[in-house]
Amino acid sequence: MAEPSFDVAHLGHVELYTDKFAESLDFFTRIYGLTASKVGDGVAWLRAFDDYEFHTLKLTANSTTGIGHVAYRASSPQALARRVTVIEGMGCGIGWVDDDEGHGPAYRFTDPDGHIFELYYDTRIYEPPEDEKPKLKNIAQRYHGRGCSPRRIDHLNLLALDVGKIRDFMVQALGSRVTEQIQLDNGRLGGCWFTVNNKSYDIAYTEDHSGTSGRFHHVTYAVDQREDILRAADIFLENGVHIETGPHKHAIQGTFFLYVWEPAGNRVELANAGARLILRPDWPTVTWTETERRRGQAWGLKTIETFHTHGTPPVQKKD
Amino acid sequence: MAEPSFDVAHLGHVELYTDKFAESLDFFTRIYGLTASKVGDGVAWLRAFDDYEFHTLKLTANSTTGIGHVAYRASSPQALARRVTVIEGMGCGIGWVDDDEGHGPAYRFTDPDGHIFELYYDTRIYEPPEDEKPKLKNIAQRYHGRGCSPRRIDHLNLLALDVGKIRDFMVQALGSRVTEQIQLDNGRLGGCWFTVNNKSYDIAYTEDHSGTSGRFHHVTYAVDQREDILRAADIFLENGVHIETGPHKHAIQGTFFLYVWEPAGNRVELANAGARLILRPDWPTVTWTETERRRGQAWGLKTIETFHTHGTPPVQKKD
Amino acid sequence: MAEPSFDVAHLGHVELYTDKFAESLDFFTRIYGLTASKVGDGVAWLRAFDDYEFHTLKLTANSTTGIGHVAYRASSPQALARRVTVIEGMGCGIGWVDDDEGHGPAYRFTDPDGHIFELYYDTRIYEPPEDEKPKLKNIAQRYHGRGCSPRRIDHLNLLALDVGKIRDFMVQALGSRVTEQIQLDNGRLGGCWFTVNNKSYDIAYTEDHSGTSGRFHHVTYAVDQREDILRAADIFLENGVHIETGPHKHAIQGTFFLYVWEPAGNRVELANAGARLILRPDWPTVTWTETERRRGQAWGLKTIETFHTHGTPPVQKKD
Amino acid sequence: MAEPSFDVAHLGHVELYTDKFAESLDFFTRIYGLTASKVGDGVAWLRAFDDYEFHTLKLTANSTTGIGHVAYRASSPQALARRVTVIEGMGCGIGWVDDDEGHGPAYRFTDPDGHIFELYYDTRIYEPPEDEKPKLKNIAQRYHGRGCSPRRIDHLNLLALDVGKIRDFMVQALGSRVTEQIQLDNGRLGGCWFTVNNKSYDIAYTEDHSGTSGRFHHVTYAVDQREDILRAADIFLENGVHIETGPHKHAIQGTFFLYVWEPAGNRVELANAGARLILRPDWPTVTWTETERRRGQAWGLKTIETFHTHGTPPVQKKD
Repeated sequence: MAEPSFDVAHLGHVELYTDKFAESLDFFTRIYGLTASKVGDGVAWLRAFDDYEFHTLKLTANSTTGIGHVAYRASSPQALARRVTVIEGMGCGIGWVDDDEGHGPAYRFTDPDGHIFELYYDTRIYEPPEDEKPKLKNIAQRYHGRGCSPRRIDHLNLLALDVGKIRDFMVQALGSRVTEQIQLDNGRLGGCWFTVNNKSYDIAYTEDHSGTSGRFHHVTYAVDQREDILRAADIFLENGVHIETGPHKHAIQGTFFLYVWEPAGNRVELANAGARLILRPDWPTVTWTETERRRGQAWGLKTIETFHTHGTPPVQKKD
Repeated sequence: MAEPSFDVAHLGHVELYTDKFAESLDFFTRIYGLTASKVGDGVAWLRAFDDYEFHTLKLTANSTTGIGHVAYRASSPQALARRVTVIEGMGCGIGWVDDDEGHGPAYRFTDPDGHIFELYYDTRIYEPPEDEKPKLKNIAQRYHGRGCSPRRIDHLNLLALDVGKIRDFMVQALGSRVTEQIQLDNGRLGGCWFTVNNKSYDIAYTEDHSGTSGRFHHVTYAVDQREDILRAADIFLENGVHIETGPHKHAIQGTFFLYVWEPAGNRVELANAGARLILRPDWPTVTWTETERRRGQAWGLKTIETFHTHGTPPVQKKD
Repeated sequence: MAEPSFDVAHLGHVELYTDKFAESLDFFTRIYGLTASKVGDGVAWLRAFDDYEFHTLKLTANSTTGIGHVAYRASSPQALARRVTVIEGMGCGIGWVDDDEGHGPAYRFTDPDGHIFELYYDTRIYEPPEDEKPKLKNIAQRYHGRGCSPRRIDHLNLLALDVGKIRDFMVQALGSRVTEQIQLDNGRLGGCWFTVNNKSYDIAYTEDHSGTSGRFHHVTYAVDQREDILRAADIFLENGVHIETGPHKHAIQGTFFLYVWEPAGNRVELANAGARLILRPDWPTVTWTETERRRGQAWGLKTIETFHTHGTPPVQKKD
Repeated sequence: MAEPSFDVAHLGHVELYTDKFAESLDFFTRIYGLTASKVGDGVAWLRAFDDYEFHTLKLTANSTTGIGHVAYRASSPQALARRVTVIEGMGCGIGWVDDDEGHGPAYRFTDPDGHIFELYYDTRIYEPPEDEKPKLKNIAQRYHGRGCSPRRIDHLNLLALDVGKIRDFMVQALGSRVTEQIQLDNGRLGGCWFTVNNKSYDIAYTEDHSGTSGRFHHVTYAVDQREDILRAADIFLENGVHIETGPHKHAIQGTFFLYVWEPAGNRVELANAGARLILRPDWPTVTWTETERRRGQAWGLKTIETFHTHGTPPVQKKD
């Protein structure tokens, strides 16, 4: 048996584009409940109350929506070096950048669908100002209770034209494990869930039927309890946020979910995984068939149509 | 920076002694909500509904209470071999055993306080009988909803005369990280929380003031939601189980807890950690002072006296 | 201002017909979590753990499904007498019966859609056998934690061809208050929610589009927490129970709901109203328009088609 | 059997004195999560998001702490008139006042311990400003999610030198039912819980051992879920609010509770009763003995000493 790699520690942050910067920033801070470490001109570094880094969401003003890049933190400087060697060897590397105040040098590369990734080790730890210091020193910031108040970044979901290629790529580039996947009747992979650690997934890819590459499906933060998600549903309702689907429980991964669209149209999720973790080192990939998927979510909810069609940036003609 | 070790995957199981086998077995299955994979003569292999192995709790009839042994599963055969070499070099090894139907060959060794540990890789996967098959195939067994119905084993807590020695031992032997600890005014460590993966802890040690070594404090299973613990409190109440303390939230690790004594006197906990994980690879140990500990638990509950004195087996004179 | 009437204290029980008696009884006791006070030949008297009467659900074997009768308990013998006088004056009285071991003499009458009602005061208090005695003496039976374990009967929903007539009837016959209603564009009432006490409703009627009168929509028991409903969803899933819709929150009345079909096809709900009560003595009826209803449930879930068509007994041709 | 009275509809509001007006107002609005309908000079009218009246808490600057008065709303003008006749006949009436902008004319009287009560029918309905209008029109104000965000006023607890006298008084004056009580070994009543409607209690009295009359124990607002109370504990912790005891479940009434002291020292509770209601019209009073009380709260928590001694205003010498 080949040994698993532990070179990559965790998902670090996601850069999201918005063409409604002020509205998106208001959504993420006042309603969704993230805290801004810094707000600049058309850019904001945001994080959940127990995210230990300077930021886990970078919100960037742009002419359109969708994803800027995804970043993972390596387990050590040595592990970072090992991964860069692997990725360079795969021929998808772009090179080193050192241009963000949220972390140190990062190695930039692309996935087969054109999404940009970064891998870094040196990071900037969040230092709470006096009025954000927690009463219990084992959390990164006080529990402020503002808006939905998620605890930490959890995962993101990207769209790709060929999920099968992505599968090979992620396993090789990041050493990710494939915890669950959808096997379509036509032989293609419909979706794939990956993890680099004990979380059940930190990134998922699902097939993009629009013919456009490089698109974004959603980003997710984790709350401690399912009740936090039910409460969030009322917060979204009262603030006029478009609730797309949920709260309900996914059959895949068993996640309790709620999906909304932030003002610029990017899909955002709140999720709770309960006490579920992938601790088993030889976890066998769980494969779902199309027939099984037709049964809907765990408790029978049919997947809403927009969940299959809406991605960002929108596709010109059909979205 | 030395690279972290990922040789040990997770806590595997705990063997608990009971001098009231039938009553303890009834407690763990009907009230606490574990499922017996097998019940033999004076021995039972138990597990929570989403534990993937044959057992995570071995209940063994004995003349007294306390712990038989603790077992961790390695990440791979190679990792197991590496660890055994380290442990043998430390001079605390006992040797290989292959005598349990729950897993394959295990290397046995002792901690500085005399507790027995095992490390293994080959394991027996739980195969649910027809009526225990889950409707969603990504969990190990159906959610049966019987008793407290925890999801998985979470951690255990052992007592030791010298927690400082234990600290060095666990870091070296298992490659554990020390996530939190209590620094007493007298220079000694009052308690230490360790993890080999992304859980905030899988084993904790606290100082035994009784002068007796090798004792057990508690074993803990995880439930998905804090509400499961509030519900469990009513189940324990109605079944006449001694509730020692809780539900409340620990300041250390932020765990939402409930402690009871099973019929033979071993302390058992139900816990929920919310979405909290130790994903940061360079997590700095959080150290609590005696002064901080005197503030009580997170929301002010004073720690009950028996929590400091009651361990199993009981100490002859004072317990 | 006319003074409100407090003659009727609360919904007492519902008699439900089943053509699969054994399966229905298994559902209601083992899965839904009611307790049988008595099981006879083709009849069972069931109740939730904190229902104080001998039964709140009478399950009766029959050639079809649907409702036998609905019973309310009066506030006093004098109040019962007053109500009977009113009802007799309305010309819909049937007369006194005294044929059920769950309560004393009851006055029988019909609503304009042909459903049978009873009103009684003398009742039989549930006396728990030794092993069902609660540890806290202010609840009727121990919290057993079996299945979904609801606390008490909450309400029922009947179908009627003319909800407007029902509205006048319930206000006059039982002195009910109309807390909410649906006003259709065609001038008809689409639904009406009534209460005789501080609960937000104890009975609801919605329009039956099948042309058949006397049909049943659902009966509901209340759980203490929304988490109990999420947990119940997994219990229903694992036991192969048909989950029709939910969990979600109704816009009308704000109830958190989950609807399933018991084995014979009768719709059964689990619900939680939070801390919501109708304490205001001059509560003004809340009226929802068709346009408002089209927005779906509170968080946007579209009402499932069967919710409008499935009632019991089934209509011969279309159901 | 004498018929129960339904003349009094519900607890209307409590006037609380504070000698730290600004700090108390900040606590009740920003942390506890009430909304101010109006703030004047040294007086504020506050309410929870689903309280339908202009105010349920009147906060009044004073030289000390404790209670100003308690007010109940009658079921109708006729019911108000009936009650006033009864109360005048009891010899404890003070007379009519019409001096508060939160409601119309109120009849003022005193309980045997000197606390001031008011009874009124004409009231001022809360009219939400545009940005506080709820998205669902069956609640009084939008769910704002600020601080602890309770739904409605629930009950208050007063101290009295002779609870036995209070018992007779409340039954006669308000037509209250005694749902639970504590019978001390010395023949005195240690505590008494009353309700005028289907809530399990709207006011409680417990014995004041200080020898001082007219004191206040606590006021309570209801949240929808127990999880709201666990979440509130973190909010109180992070805001430096003194948490006295809880969260835990009372044996008496089964209420899930959390007690804190607002900045001026008045005790404030958050509570959840689950789905428990007193619907039974002939509810027999539940009597607890001293021996039963010594067992502690429902899950074994020992009642904290200050709970028996701390009341407001403080007693000069010993508090």
